[in-house]
Amino acid sequence: MPVLQSYIAGQWFGKTESKALISAINGETVAHTHQESINFAEAVAYARNTGVKNLLALDFQQRAAILKALAGYIQERKRELYAISHHTGCTKADSWIDIDGGFGTLFTYASTGRKELPSGNVAHEGPVTQLGKDNHFNGTHILVPRRGVSVHINAFNFPIWGMLEKFAPAFLAGMPCIFKPATATSYLTEAAMRVINDSGLLPEGALQLVIGGAGDLLDQLEEQDVVTFTGSASTALMLKSHPNIMAKSIPFNAEADSLNSAIMAPDVSPEDEEFEIFAKEVVKEMTAKAGQKCTAIRRVLVPAEHLDALADLIKERLSSIVAGDPHEEGVRMGALSSSDQLRDVNEAIERLLETSECVFGKDGSFKPVGQGVEHGAFIAPHLLINRNPLNDGGAHDIEAFGPVATLMPYRGIKEALAIAAKGKGSLVTTLTTKDPVIAAEMIPVLAAQHGRLHILDAQASKESTGHGSPLPMLKHGGPGRAGGGEELGGIRAVHHYLQRTAIQGSPTMIAAVTGEYVRGAKVIETDVHPFRRHFDDLQVGESLLTHRRTVTEADIVNFGCLSGDHFYMHFDDIAAKETQFGQRIAHGYFVLSAAAGLFVYPGEGPVLANYGLDTLRFITPVLVGDTIRARLTCKRKIDQGRASPDGHPQGVVMWDVAVTNQHDELVASYDILTLVAKRQ
Amino acid sequence: MPVLQSYIAGQWFGKTESKALISAINGETVAHTHQESINFAEAVAYARNTGVKNLLALDFQQRAAILKALAGYIQERKRELYAISHHTGCTKADSWIDIDGGFGTLFTYASTGRKELPSGNVAHEGPVTQLGKDNHFNGTHILVPRRGVSVHINAFNFPIWGMLEKFAPAFLAGMPCIFKPATATSYLTEAAMRVINDSGLLPEGALQLVIGGAGDLLDQLEEQDVVTFTGSASTALMLKSHPNIMAKSIPFNAEADSLNSAIMAPDVSPEDEEFEIFAKEVVKEMTAKAGQKCTAIRRVLVPAEHLDALADLIKERLSSIVAGDPHEEGVRMGALSSSDQLRDVNEAIERLLETSECVFGKDGSFKPVGQGVEHGAFIAPHLLINRNPLNDGGAHDIEAFGPVATLMPYRGIKEALAIAAKGKGSLVTTLTTKDPVIAAEMIPVLAAQHGRLHILDAQASKESTGHGSPLPMLKHGGPGRAGGGEELGGIRAVHHYLQRTAIQGSPTMIAAVTGEYVRGAKVIETDVHPFRRHFDDLQVGESLLTHRRTVTEADIVNFGCLSGDHFYMHFDDIAAKETQFGQRIAHGYFVLSAAAGLFVYPGEGPVLANYGLDTLRFITPVLVGDTIRARLTCKRKIDQGRASPDGHPQGVVMWDVAVTNQHDELVASYDILTLVAKRQ
Repeated sequence: MPVLQSYIAGQWFGKTESKALISAINGETVAHTHQESINFAEAVAYARNTGVKNLLALDFQQRAAILKALAGYIQERKRELYAISHHTGCTKADSWIDIDGGFGTLFTYASTGRKELPSGNVAHEGPVTQLGKDNHFNGTHILVPRRGVSVHINAFNFPIWGMLEKFAPAFLAGMPCIFKPATATSYLTEAAMRVINDSGLLPEGALQLVIGGAGDLLDQLEEQDVVTFTGSASTALMLKSHPNIMAKSIPFNAEADSLNSAIMAPDVSPEDEEFEIFAKEVVKEMTAKAGQKCTAIRRVLVPAEHLDALADLIKERLSSIVAGDPHEEGVRMGALSSSDQLRDVNEAIERLLETSECVFGKDGSFKPVGQGVEHGAFIAPHLLINRNPLNDGGAHDIEAFGPVATLMPYRGIKEALAIAAKGKGSLVTTLTTKDPVIAAEMIPVLAAQHGRLHILDAQASKESTGHGSPLPMLKHGGPGRAGGGEELGGIRAVHHYLQRTAIQGSPTMIAAVTGEYVRGAKVIETDVHPFRRHFDDLQVGESLLTHRRTVTEADIVNFGCLSGDHFYMHFDDIAAKETQFGQRIAHGYFVLSAAAGLFVYPGEGPVLANYGLDTLRFITPVLVGDTIRARLTCKRKIDQGRASPDGHPQGVVMWDVAVTNQHDELVASYDILTLVAKRQ
Repeated sequence: MPVLQSYIAGQWFGKTESKALISAINGETVAHTHQESINFAEAVAYARNTGVKNLLALDFQQRAAILKALAGYIQERKRELYAISHHTGCTKADSWIDIDGGFGTLFTYASTGRKELPSGNVAHEGPVTQLGKDNHFNGTHILVPRRGVSVHINAFNFPIWGMLEKFAPAFLAGMPCIFKPATATSYLTEAAMRVINDSGLLPEGALQLVIGGAGDLLDQLEEQDVVTFTGSASTALMLKSHPNIMAKSIPFNAEADSLNSAIMAPDVSPEDEEFEIFAKEVVKEMTAKAGQKCTAIRRVLVPAEHLDALADLIKERLSSIVAGDPHEEGVRMGALSSSDQLRDVNEAIERLLETSECVFGKDGSFKPVGQGVEHGAFIAPHLLINRNPLNDGGAHDIEAFGPVATLMPYRGIKEALAIAAKGKGSLVTTLTTKDPVIAAEMIPVLAAQHGRLHILDAQASKESTGHGSPLPMLKHGGPGRAGGGEELGGIRAVHHYLQRTAIQGSPTMIAAVTGEYVRGAKVIETDVHPFRRHFDDLQVGESLLTHRRTVTEADIVNFGCLSGDHFYMHFDDIAAKETQFGQRIAHGYFVLSAAAGLFVYPGEGPVLANYGLDTLRFITPVLVGDTIRARLTCKRKIDQGRASPDGHPQGVVMWDVAVTNQHDELVASYDILTLVAKRQ
């Protein structure tokens, strides 16, 4: 059996057999951890020096591109990983969550980075606030990579997804990672790490892997570092209490399993399609990954009058589930990940049964199929009923981390909400209702105690990704018992690895720091029209102050007749006199169109398309006889390393437009978005 | 002397004299704390029941309006507070920061709430993501008030601002507050609390005040609660380590004083205006509030060659500062807040002097003016020089929380950055440079270790609010040593009291929960044009699918000639053939204008103005012969309780606009912003 190796300071490390890691399916040894202890001071120093330096030599857009390439590379080699994943007790569907879910998260963060982060390593979080009346002093915020290492400590249940969903936002932000998987399934993480290494895509120092214990890793950390953790609430508490973490205010982001609920709302009855949908979801969540998901449904809240009907339906569905070696045909539930887990789950069930009754799973009929499964970590799905959930603490606190759920009857919405709240903070709840009014009543109350809420009706069920699946675009992590952390949620997760800093200064200084033109900053005016400049040549701050145009009554008439917009403010003298302006005014969209007429360079040039416009505000009305002009200034350039559909390399340019009148009053203000060709 | 009272569970509490609180100016007793112990379980229960219920009976907009009224009320009675503030050792300028700064923060949060929060108590944090290809299943995020109490524990230096800057965002979010000021200056906080109570503006349970110790307050807290703290790093560590806080993952937001620096960049020399500006800022920060600001400048980094010149200039300015009873004419520096502080500061200076030399403050010439000042807590400003800052830990760690700063010479930008970083995380640094290139190089590196960066050049100095002043719109709080928390920063601070929750479901369910129309949700179509509906009558989801319009070549020609926009994509057949569309296309702004022509109701009606437009994207080009139509749907209503300039009550309505072509392809997508009159 192979000895797993850590990957530390650019080297595979360890060769002497230590602890045996056991297949959850048949009890055979899959691999061994290594005996040699890791020098964590060296690992951290390597991340802090080589890692930070190499990551910050790239920018947000370049790191996003690497994530995309890496996702594609892992995707190509996923079969190797599926073969190993089997030993963790996974069915093919379970492995899909871990493996395809893993590189899928990389794809999402590649795309999030490309769309939502700038070129460079300074993200500007506007708006810019003018802090003095003559605009000499502005304030805004920037986000920059924390200059330290991110340490990720993970649970055993998702050896690959768990690594990649934490790595993706940290890497995108520009922080190197040291990843410590749970030892029991670390052979799969190590295999994924070897694939990543083979890709040659990551810069040196970007990712290190720890096989075995974390030793004195946390003692090595400093103020600029970050720790994330997924696992049990008790381990989270132990780690975040570490004196070094506390003393240095090192951010600690915890995602702990919780006693998630599923609630069937009072409007759903056994005749409804939603009744069946709900039961199916509960069964799916009990058996997927053999119930070893921190998001799995543990508490099933049902209107008291439907308790029996729902219990019967769930029992019926559970009886058809075949468990065993996933290689055997028809197997739909795998094993727990280890015999330790099996023991823990059985113990938890016994404790739950002190106040609940078991209505499925204890009759001895459970028979996993396949060779050697008697040495595996299999357990029957268990369905419990707790008839007094409002007054029983244990049912909301004892977690059997396996295929175990407890039915809880309730009477009325208020009681359902009170029972759900007894989880003291959960990752997710499913609410099944047909009625948007009930959803609007219950969801905001539930929201205070949950990281995610899944509203499951007949329409949603056609495409629902399910109660138990965190998605990269949506926040994962709940308050209280669930650890109080946040992961994923698109760009939000990247922010955990960036330091937000307020900056104050003159507009020119703010522009220099943010890489974004700010009103009042020095502009660059040349004889060349900015629309004639290629992406490569254009500088932030290049600006055009246009010629002027006097707006006439004919313009208003012509514009109204051409657009069809005969709004009374433009066409009805009687009604317009009653408005605050006391007269007809020009159409806002005429001003916008005329401004384009003033600044657009008509000939062919590098500006390929104006694909959008943001934050348009009409500040001062334009009256007949007013004379307007526009200032067009290059506000921001983003190089996504992409090409137009016909293959021409291009970049995104955002332009600031300020339209003013003859009194230099601001008439309209907005940003336009263009694609601009590169020279080569 | 009066006995201060706590305000607990809707009652003033306490009557028996306990600890005497002493005037910092003349050592006389100002007030006593009370002896009776507070029942914190009762206080917390009151907040959780009465407080939460009353706050959530209001919505974001209504709470914003209350903050505005309260700010105005305190402003009217500010003279009473100034009279008391004097005893804390404050000059009038010092009191201004605390008192005007305090109600000013309420004004800012009133305005932030009005502009950035919706009606209701559910804030939608989009965008909505389509999670299935047929748009049956969406995901997005909401922010809802945490259903618990916010506990605020404050430092002695800003008895009023410290309360109000924490109360404002929590109240706006919808969380009741229990406020515990530092005992030494709690007589001023109690006075402010009496003013607040007199206003009668706050709902019962919104704010409670604790005079004296916090007893077992932290033991009473639960998962839904929040704690904030301002004070020393050591007290922060003690409080956040509280077992109940840790075990329940109760958010703990710490803002600790730190060893902030000011850096004169290498491009500044004694001939520059910036040299003088820098020295002035250092002296101001040393003496304002007698240096008792967590943001004060403690470390002054200067190019080695200018060390002496700068030291001389600072000494010269310090010698002209008169300290004493602020009632005496010409006094520009007050006292430390207590004799305990005086002892601590003197001790810290002695420790600093183990590796630094004192160049100002120790010659015995310091003589505060005024009666009884010999019993006050006065201290001379102390200027120190540390000649080896790269290799001396103490200078970056020992904080003398008074008018004390240490000059540190450096050689080259890299060394300056390394010295600044030895603060291990600070609230703020000032960088003085004339050169935007230097700012762009240094600021992103400094940003990783700071909460705020103040770039001070000649232009900014005309309006700068100063190194030491946190502003409500900008984030306050830094990483590491500075506590790792975040306060203020506009709406960001409100988010600390809201739970972010991902929600998933059908578009109709998402719309019901967010109170915001989502593409794909059920719409309401009636015979009445939505622009003819008053704000009160209009429902989110009311929608108009317009008639159609075929776009002709004449439209393109007329629009180009009217706007003046003759871009080649619209007018040059030869060039247009080379583009990805292979032909001329209609102007995007024509599509926008024609869509308005399709949906605008021309007659007088409740829609008063279209004041803006957001997130416009041109998705599919419109070709000659294409036929477009628009769907206009009421997306969101916000009732800010305001009226038009002519006094007519109105609300904000955001409309979703989707323009499609004859193939039902989306051509353009955007939101428009309107003001709509109310019926009454």
